[in-house]
Amino acid sequence: MSKEYDRRIGRHAVLYAFAEEGEEASLTNGFARMNWRYGKGKVGAMELQKIVAAIETSAKRQGVVNPDIYREMHALYHAILEAMHGVTRGQIELGGLLRTVGLRFAVVRGRPFENDNEGEWIAVALYGTIGAPVRGFEHEAIGLGINHI
Amino acid sequence: MSKEYDRRIGRHAVLYAFAEEGEEASLTNGFARMNWRYGKGKVGAMELQKIVAAIETSAKRQGVVNPDIYREMHALYHAILEAMHGVTRGQIELGGLLRTVGLRFAVVRGRPFENDNEGEWIAVALYGTIGAPVRGFEHEAIGLGINHI
Amino acid sequence: MSKEYDRRIGRHAVLYAFAEEGEEASLTNGFARMNWRYGKGKVGAMELQKIVAAIETSAKRQGVVNPDIYREMHALYHAILEAMHGVTRGQIELGGLLRTVGLRFAVVRGRPFENDNEGEWIAVALYGTIGAPVRGFEHEAIGLGINHI
Amino acid sequence: MSKEYDRRIGRHAVLYAFAEEGEEASLTNGFARMNWRYGKGKVGAMELQKIVAAIETSAKRQGVVNPDIYREMHALYHAILEAMHGVTRGQIELGGLLRTVGLRFAVVRGRPFENDNEGEWIAVALYGTIGAPVRGFEHEAIGLGINHI
Amino acid sequence: MSKEYDRRIGRHAVLYAFAEEGEEASLTNGFARMNWRYGKGKVGAMELQKIVAAIETSAKRQGVVNPDIYREMHALYHAILEAMHGVTRGQIELGGLLRTVGLRFAVVRGRPFENDNEGEWIAVALYGTIGAPVRGFEHEAIGLGINHI
Amino acid sequence: MSKEYDRRIGRHAVLYAFAEEGEEASLTNGFARMNWRYGKGKVGAMELQKIVAAIETSAKRQGVVNPDIYREMHALYHAILEAMHGVTRGQIELGGLLRTVGLRFAVVRGRPFENDNEGEWIAVALYGTIGAPVRGFEHEAIGLGINHI
Repeated sequence: MSKEYDRRIGRHAVLYAFAEEGEEASLTNGFARMNWRYGKGKVGAMELQKIVAAIETSAKRQGVVNPDIYREMHALYHAILEAMHGVTRGQIELGGLLRTVGLRFAVVRGRPFENDNEGEWIAVALYGTIGAPVRGFEHEAIGLGINHI
Repeated sequence: MSKEYDRRIGRHAVLYAFAEEGEEASLTNGFARMNWRYGKGKVGAMELQKIVAAIETSAKRQGVVNPDIYREMHALYHAILEAMHGVTRGQIELGGLLRTVGLRFAVVRGRPFENDNEGEWIAVALYGTIGAPVRGFEHEAIGLGINHI
Repeated sequence: MSKEYDRRIGRHAVLYAFAEEGEEASLTNGFARMNWRYGKGKVGAMELQKIVAAIETSAKRQGVVNPDIYREMHALYHAILEAMHGVTRGQIELGGLLRTVGLRFAVVRGRPFENDNEGEWIAVALYGTIGAPVRGFEHEAIGLGINHI
Repeated sequence: MSKEYDRRIGRHAVLYAFAEEGEEASLTNGFARMNWRYGKGKVGAMELQKIVAAIETSAKRQGVVNPDIYREMHALYHAILEAMHGVTRGQIELGGLLRTVGLRFAVVRGRPFENDNEGEWIAVALYGTIGAPVRGFEHEAIGLGINHI
Repeated sequence: MSKEYDRRIGRHAVLYAFAEEGEEASLTNGFARMNWRYGKGKVGAMELQKIVAAIETSAKRQGVVNPDIYREMHALYHAILEAMHGVTRGQIELGGLLRTVGLRFAVVRGRPFENDNEGEWIAVALYGTIGAPVRGFEHEAIGLGINHI
Repeated sequence: MSKEYDRRIGRHAVLYAFAEEGEEASLTNGFARMNWRYGKGKVGAMELQKIVAAIETSAKRQGVVNPDIYREMHALYHAILEAMHGVTRGQIELGGLLRTVGLRFAVVRGRPFENDNEGEWIAVALYGTIGAPVRGFEHEAIGLGINHI
């Protein structure tokens, strides 16, 4: 592969999570040129397991991971938990601490290293708000998890 | 204040941390129009306290916080620690876990809420790499901490 | 303000949580002289979110915080979580770890620093017992969280 | 007591948890010779409190601890939580992180030190699998907690 | 033993840590009447291990624990760590997070339960300030750890 | 591959860490029959980074991982940290909490799943003692980390 590719998979995943509909083409065109897989979605919940499930389901449906291979789901799961650390900042817990989130998530899978032996990696980016279950009583939060897959 | 302002202070701080020199004008012009304060810098270290100190020193020197007011330094400190959670994902520790980081940081201070009574808030964004103390054995990491100030 | 005031807001909050009815006057008179706001209450639960909600509700009703300002609720929320660290000592979790608490809480808001620019701070003190859901199978626990507000 | 005894209570507890029915005699004979108490059982759950309750109930029924003495239950409880750290590796949480466990547990109580003044200690060993709530999407996990009793 | 004793060992330990010289007699007289052991001291440091060592050394010298029995040191050690959770509120770390503490500590050992079979317990109380390594940039903190011994 | 193989890689790794010299043949013969890679070693330290480094160095030298592939070192690193959770039970820290460890470690790499698509996984097992820096003031500890590689 040539050097002209920008392989910063984490940065890409965050920008993809930031992007509104209609602003995504430059990112997804780049992913396509590099033969990377990608998907995104939205989820709001006070139960953390719903966040995990929503991201896993979305990544399966959009073909970013193979749902029949535990190895792939294991890599994705740990990337999700690592990203949730950035969102929750201290303890991966939502409703139990009386807080809720509204998140956009992006999952990107590709080859971030020049060396082909490094194989594929997966990045999970989360962006949205966290706060009390009261409208407007919330601030932004972000998280990024990266794992080999 | 009018609604035309994009007050997403966390998103702005992350984009500002992402921005290379020469790409920052559209962001900083926006900050200036809203009368927000901002600063950025770089730091690489295996000692977490050096990261904290570098961000604090930079924020003081660039006038983002008043170094004589403990209240402001307390707000900044907790925002830094929250951002470090996103970077370290589990335990705020670097060298003790045999890992090192190279980070760009951005600190933005402004009024992210329409309601003036909500006052000023501060956002600390971190973006860079974390990994083994071996060149290239590292992946990207990101963190965002937001606090009232 | 004169130096005669004892501004140790954390110590005051703990003693206020310790105090039985009828023993509180010397503390609350001191708070009143300094124009500090204060409130207290009791809560027992296996669900952590009930503890958080009980303290927030009490602090709103007793006028310690303004429920319409997110900034104030954000400061209170983080002070509560910090106090819960002292009570739970390792992971902010109760029922999920098969344990329950019976707590008295005190919330005090005032100016603990001589320098007026330091503004107002809030202290949340918790005191009571933590243990198994079996009568008498419990020991004491304490927590204190302090934040700028 | 003579030196011929192998007093490694943690190692014994792990091997006892590993042992299938029919393979336990050499271990339990050793426990009996040293006048140690012991018990084991199985539990599968997504709710962590069920794991704690199952181990506590089993240890009471098998006479490893005295259910009327809080002191003994306190020692056992902390040993269980310490063992769960090894199983959960980061946060003592199961269903909230969308994961489940199937565990065999062993509880052993005895005198692991030559010096009689060191008294009795308790070891809790856990062995099994942790993973997604999908058959086969799981890997092994282990934990050991040791406390004075 | 009669019911007239106030056996709240944790509350006592905190008040003892709060007490200035000359104010301690009513507490220590109570301890003596119940045949409880007690000691106190001061320590300031950025290195957490120095805090642990200072409390252990003080408790040994003042006869609160027997330094030749690991069982007793194990009970004390865990009580110290639990108390440090209240002081550090999230991660038991000081200098690595660029913060320092100045603490008074009290260690009390006695029988907090009516039932004699519950035996002796130990309480470690910490009270002081935590903050930046800058004079006055600090706020109060408290911690309490209780363990059977 | 036939079903006669016992593929419980985590259990194997723990038993291999338990095994004294001369007792290892039945385990290592099994590893060889399945074409698994394996290695073991010892390390004692108060500095956690030395433990990580010792395991990494040993796994490289014994050919369990390829030191030129970050992907492999990343998988090993996370397996080591997960295993350290079991040893440290709450915070991955040694000297900073005034404690030290003496550990035997085993690293095993192979195919624990029947389905060939699941590929290779790595297990890190730790067994030894943790305690005060005083001879004999220590108890056993164990940890197991498993990751896809």
